[in-house]
Amino acid sequence: MDAFKETKRTRVVRAAKRGHYDHKTVYAILDEALICHVGAVIEDKSAVIPTAHWRQDNRLYIHGSSGNRLLRAAAGREVCIAVTLMDGLVMARSGFHHSVNYRSVIVYGIAEPVDDAAEKLDALEVFMEKIAPGRWPELRPATKKEIDSTLVLVVDLKEVSAKVRSGPPIDDEPDYALPIWAGVIPLRVTTGAPVPDPQLTKGIDLPAYLRPGAP
Amino acid sequence: MDAFKETKRTRVVRAAKRGHYDHKTVYAILDEALICHVGAVIEDKSAVIPTAHWRQDNRLYIHGSSGNRLLRAAAGREVCIAVTLMDGLVMARSGFHHSVNYRSVIVYGIAEPVDDAAEKLDALEVFMEKIAPGRWPELRPATKKEIDSTLVLVVDLKEVSAKVRSGPPIDDEPDYALPIWAGVIPLRVTTGAPVPDPQLTKGIDLPAYLRPGAP
Repeated sequence: MDAFKETKRTRVVRAAKRGHYDHKTVYAILDEALICHVGAVIEDKSAVIPTAHWRQDNRLYIHGSSGNRLLRAAAGREVCIAVTLMDGLVMARSGFHHSVNYRSVIVYGIAEPVDDAAEKLDALEVFMEKIAPGRWPELRPATKKEIDSTLVLVVDLKEVSAKVRSGPPIDDEPDYALPIWAGVIPLRVTTGAPVPDPQLTKGIDLPAYLRPGAP
Repeated sequence: MDAFKETKRTRVVRAAKRGHYDHKTVYAILDEALICHVGAVIEDKSAVIPTAHWRQDNRLYIHGSSGNRLLRAAAGREVCIAVTLMDGLVMARSGFHHSVNYRSVIVYGIAEPVDDAAEKLDALEVFMEKIAPGRWPELRPATKKEIDSTLVLVVDLKEVSAKVRSGPPIDDEPDYALPIWAGVIPLRVTTGAPVPDPQLTKGIDLPAYLRPGAP
């Protein structure tokens, strides 16, 4: 199984058994999550922004306006990208053993700007395929101005780890006998019924790829 | 209306009308979100971790194991904390105008360790009240060892801003006539049916505060 090599920063030390380094686990988390949090050092201080991300092969992409302060500062420099999926609240018999079920990935790497317009456009198409597969060819094509004003950054996935907690609470042995409810409250992200733009031209049906349950 | 003073780092420059600095908007986002992403500078590099947070008055709390590398590094130093709620995918008629509806908060501040055991315990009780109001008094009380091995950090909310996008796509005027579906796919976090611990003592009912719809 292909896997990322552990480094001092990516090795999961606490609850080490929750650490995963195989591509399959990492990719599945990156592909399910819609947003990440990007950390960069700006003027010697930490700055974090939320943004959408997508993956192609062993590369992680983020994008934003060419005017975005943090993305501009991050271009060509090292970033830390965190992707987190919350799966449940873990209710234990002591406050201390309460926890959350989650799947998370941490990526360290250089955020290289994608300068070539054709490459940038290809990357943005992959992003649209993640969000709404089949939508890209239906859209009004991107203009040169739009491509120029979009900053796309790509990080080669090298220094990466995942951390996953699942299952019931782990209580201290004597606490299992206590008359306290314990278990997991599952959490998930759900989509609601699509809300058409009030300015939508009449007679345009919701495309199949956006119907509930798709893709 | 009480509000945070804008600074160079917190002023929302792009899409400035999406920026909010009033306590009410900021507090509502912090209180609804379960997790945040904490950024700190470690050995001159950015590090980001996901963790749960809670708020009391004008203070934001995070916690973790005393052994947590990033939290330990952050103690007494400046952090950037991002809290993000995703509300929808905004599907426009061009790729460029696709967006997301979201409510986010960025906090800059010093993460001061809460050293006093009684204060720490009070803070953890406030956290439990956020997650499951009424549960704290039912739990097996915390031990000194547990309190000692929990690191609680608190940030005074001073340099803070919120950014909110809502509503339909904003397309280029000529694009509204195109035969392309546009609108919003709402997203929200939902809770599933509670899953009792397989080791739960028989006869313990799900407490009212954990029933679907509560609180």
